[in-house]
Amino acid sequence: MNTLKTQIAELQQLRIDTYGKDFLLTWEKSDEEIRALTLVAECLYELHRARKPLRIFESGLAVSIFRDKSTRTRFSFASAVNALGLGLSELDEEKSQIAHGETVRETANVISFMTEAIGIRDDMYLGEGNTYMREVGQAVQEGFEKGVLHQRPSVINLQCDVDHPTQALADLMQLKHHFGSLEKLRGKKIAMTWAYSPSYGKPLSVPQGIIGLMTRFGMHVSLAYPEGYGLIPEVVEVAQRNSRKNGGKFEVLSSMEAAFKGAAVVYPKSWAPYHVMQRRTPLLHKGDKEGLKQLEKECLANNARHKDWECSEQKMKLTKGGEVLYMHCLPADISGVSCAQGEVSKSVFEKYRIATYQEASYKPFIIAAMILMARLPEPVTVLKRLIAAAAKS
Amino acid sequence: MNTLKTQIAELQQLRIDTYGKDFLLTWEKSDEEIRALTLVAECLYELHRARKPLRIFESGLAVSIFRDKSTRTRFSFASAVNALGLGLSELDEEKSQIAHGETVRETANVISFMTEAIGIRDDMYLGEGNTYMREVGQAVQEGFEKGVLHQRPSVINLQCDVDHPTQALADLMQLKHHFGSLEKLRGKKIAMTWAYSPSYGKPLSVPQGIIGLMTRFGMHVSLAYPEGYGLIPEVVEVAQRNSRKNGGKFEVLSSMEAAFKGAAVVYPKSWAPYHVMQRRTPLLHKGDKEGLKQLEKECLANNARHKDWECSEQKMKLTKGGEVLYMHCLPADISGVSCAQGEVSKSVFEKYRIATYQEASYKPFIIAAMILMARLPEPVTVLKRLIAAAAKS
Amino acid sequence: MNTLKTQIAELQQLRIDTYGKDFLLTWEKSDEEIRALTLVAECLYELHRARKPLRIFESGLAVSIFRDKSTRTRFSFASAVNALGLGLSELDEEKSQIAHGETVRETANVISFMTEAIGIRDDMYLGEGNTYMREVGQAVQEGFEKGVLHQRPSVINLQCDVDHPTQALADLMQLKHHFGSLEKLRGKKIAMTWAYSPSYGKPLSVPQGIIGLMTRFGMHVSLAYPEGYGLIPEVVEVAQRNSRKNGGKFEVLSSMEAAFKGAAVVYPKSWAPYHVMQRRTPLLHKGDKEGLKQLEKECLANNARHKDWECSEQKMKLTKGGEVLYMHCLPADISGVSCAQGEVSKSVFEKYRIATYQEASYKPFIIAAMILMARLPEPVTVLKRLIAAAAKS
Repeated sequence: MNTLKTQIAELQQLRIDTYGKDFLLTWEKSDEEIRALTLVAECLYELHRARKPLRIFESGLAVSIFRDKSTRTRFSFASAVNALGLGLSELDEEKSQIAHGETVRETANVISFMTEAIGIRDDMYLGEGNTYMREVGQAVQEGFEKGVLHQRPSVINLQCDVDHPTQALADLMQLKHHFGSLEKLRGKKIAMTWAYSPSYGKPLSVPQGIIGLMTRFGMHVSLAYPEGYGLIPEVVEVAQRNSRKNGGKFEVLSSMEAAFKGAAVVYPKSWAPYHVMQRRTPLLHKGDKEGLKQLEKECLANNARHKDWECSEQKMKLTKGGEVLYMHCLPADISGVSCAQGEVSKSVFEKYRIATYQEASYKPFIIAAMILMARLPEPVTVLKRLIAAAAKS
Repeated sequence: MNTLKTQIAELQQLRIDTYGKDFLLTWEKSDEEIRALTLVAECLYELHRARKPLRIFESGLAVSIFRDKSTRTRFSFASAVNALGLGLSELDEEKSQIAHGETVRETANVISFMTEAIGIRDDMYLGEGNTYMREVGQAVQEGFEKGVLHQRPSVINLQCDVDHPTQALADLMQLKHHFGSLEKLRGKKIAMTWAYSPSYGKPLSVPQGIIGLMTRFGMHVSLAYPEGYGLIPEVVEVAQRNSRKNGGKFEVLSSMEAAFKGAAVVYPKSWAPYHVMQRRTPLLHKGDKEGLKQLEKECLANNARHKDWECSEQKMKLTKGGEVLYMHCLPADISGVSCAQGEVSKSVFEKYRIATYQEASYKPFIIAAMILMARLPEPVTVLKRLIAAAAKS
Repeated sequence: MNTLKTQIAELQQLRIDTYGKDFLLTWEKSDEEIRALTLVAECLYELHRARKPLRIFESGLAVSIFRDKSTRTRFSFASAVNALGLGLSELDEEKSQIAHGETVRETANVISFMTEAIGIRDDMYLGEGNTYMREVGQAVQEGFEKGVLHQRPSVINLQCDVDHPTQALADLMQLKHHFGSLEKLRGKKIAMTWAYSPSYGKPLSVPQGIIGLMTRFGMHVSLAYPEGYGLIPEVVEVAQRNSRKNGGKFEVLSSMEAAFKGAAVVYPKSWAPYHVMQRRTPLLHKGDKEGLKQLEKECLANNARHKDWECSEQKMKLTKGGEVLYMHCLPADISGVSCAQGEVSKSVFEKYRIATYQEASYKPFIIAAMILMARLPEPVTVLKRLIAAAAKS
């Protein structure tokens, strides 16, 4: 708990403008805001580790909207809002009348009368998830301005087609703790590489989130994938800009080995090619099962040509010292465990298994920090109060 | 917050007998109880607007049973019970063993050991929803009297085949705020009219709730629908009785224009004809898909003969001053937005869109007031305590 | 509330080692621990009856995993965790990525970052439910030891293939209150008998739980079933060992009448034969609908040969004095009510209906006591604090 003094002192130096805002893309937040977020999350993490309460709300709801399956993020969100004192209400679109053609802005308001945060996962449709989140944000902004809502809930992106900020920021916390500080990330090489998986259609948001965030800390970010597995061009440009601005390096390679070479961190993870996601979106909309089957077949055949993109003991030897940090957002496709052949060999995964759980463990605190910073005008004052109360109890 | 003194003073004059009771039909409650309910809801609304806590329970559950889709009421109930300090548990009949032939009275008791309120939506089956709610109420009453339950949960009607009291009372709050007081409703004309919709099978509970409640305040209630779209006769009789007793006017018309003429409020909303709901209930029970399809086809054809029952700019000009309050329980079928042609034109809806959100926003406070008055023997004392605590913080 | 002094005094004499442990089988807990659990549950029950708060957590989650339908246990768990101050998050395996092949130990950790208790119902697959619970327990133990989890959630068995401890212990509380004390159970005959049901595939966990627990209190436990309806042999051995050790009697009979003769308690309840469950498990795994249908047909035909295994007025006359306690975990198959012919006659059930609700009403308190004893190092201190606070309010 003693270390919290440092965090608070650092926090007080930072200019932030997060109150009343949504959290939709890491690159819409300033460097100071990202830094502040990791500090707030660390304070909450340390308080929780000491088994101290994090409650900042007397009552109020957090609403989650999951348009795709989720375990980790679902429970991270549930944990975070519970710790802050909010009740959780899930908007299940099958049980609700949204299916009846209701517009987004109506729904956004009618679920928000006593709501502080709206967490949304919408990663299935390229070009739509992030857009939907913005529509929800605008709708509650209007409702708040017109006096319909007594408070303006903040929208938290729990994974969209473009970014996965709660994951990328939990990953950043893992890196910060692994290397000791954000400053020590400078110059470190991280290999964000595609990896083989026997499934297809995995979202692009994790690799996009990683290259969009880690390029801000002077890291050497190597993005590697087989030909045809590119990401959304606009996000790659974000990474390039970040890198130029922050003095790191950003490169795109077509070999896992090249990316791993000299890396201090590896993040091998499967995703569907951008152009496949573009073809898949209209098929999903139309519910075209035959077309989806056909596309899947084609993609799996394509994937199968890259079975050598596996994070093996062999490849790990190429990294800096051969004992670098392996990262994954989970669940990983582990060769011989969850599938015949997958993203990572059994022995490599087993070595880092606990580390991947640790990585995941930061997510509830990142989400709590996002809500705290979005919903309270003076986050530092509130943190000080929590810390003071913790010291007494 | 200053206005709350008036509310409390008025509340203290009213005789109420709501403790330990259910809330199933507005016309089972006395005029003083209805008046008290709006006052309690206003107090809670004002406290919440000032961001003050409404917590009155240390712990306890509220159980909801939704036998039909719902967004607004679901979240209103979730918000209300959270604000009061209760946890929400939804009884999902598909996941439970009710499907296994369990009787209502057993279930009612086994979900109630620590439960303060049971909210039920059951509006699909004519002649059954309200009956089911009464069975639940009787079962928990027995359990309480026999010492099985340590407290007697109150059943809250979240929409049945007969009434939709949380909606009608939220609408009443909207009217009260629009006109300034319940007294000022006297003599005002409200047009509760059928409207065209490209869907069918919408419940009768909203128009029934409106005519059953608004006739109690001396309003001039014009119910209008095309031939064959009548409501449950017993509820129409309630409206007639209310009207005679309270010195207002209640009339049944067969023209939207006639109803709109000189109206101060219009409530154009689609519903299925009573006799269709009567035919539909046994088909739903039997799961007779073919029969339901046939009935739907027939009804849609019938509906289609009344496409002119749309709340258009043209028709709005017939109202008093042409700028009257438009109401809707949402979601509305908006021509050119949620359907090709529907209940209301795009331009009329857009003008009143925020007003309809405001209308919806009272529902959580109406529900909270219902629970507070049903579960606490001295609601005024409790409100005073909340107000005093709010003044200090 | 005065009686609570006795409970606390008795509790202070007992040696217990439940902190940080799971609750998976009653026979893994010492006699003193079982005794302590009923005392803790009684304290919570009395506090709740006096409408006093049971809150012991500021925040934190309880996670439930239901792999089979449930009403009673679901709401008992929801009630218990709410009363203790925890938020409830249900892991719905259809909505989560577990379906994607995620391993148990990963999932167990990622749902546990802020979790105090994990309640699991897994009773469909013979040889698997309890095993799964142990895997979850081991996984969170590892996560806690490695520092991934800041607290070690306790796994609570909400019914598995082997035991149904929350049911059996609620039943024990019912017996304790019926007879006055655990000591007075000595020598009393309880008839745990199979009964006819028009359904098949009911789990073995209730009869197994009863014979495994009630043999510990010197009761005369008569297990009776038609030929071929045996229980898991290992559990029968547990009952035999318990009985030898505790000076009671345990016998296996093949006649309902013989079991009822001179009984002080009867517990007639249908279950599927052990060997049927053995055949059913691989069919369920394969999703072999045809095979399951065939097995069901065969079993129902078999069941039908034992329609005389009904708890009738006639058979009740065989019991001690003819007015003994009838028990059932609910829902019962009641002849002429929930089925044409079933486990119990309408008139017998009606006579004991309220008693069966009372029996069920202990379950939330048993679950709360399990969590309290597993998650708090000094349960007596905490109880004393709750009692002192209750006395003041």
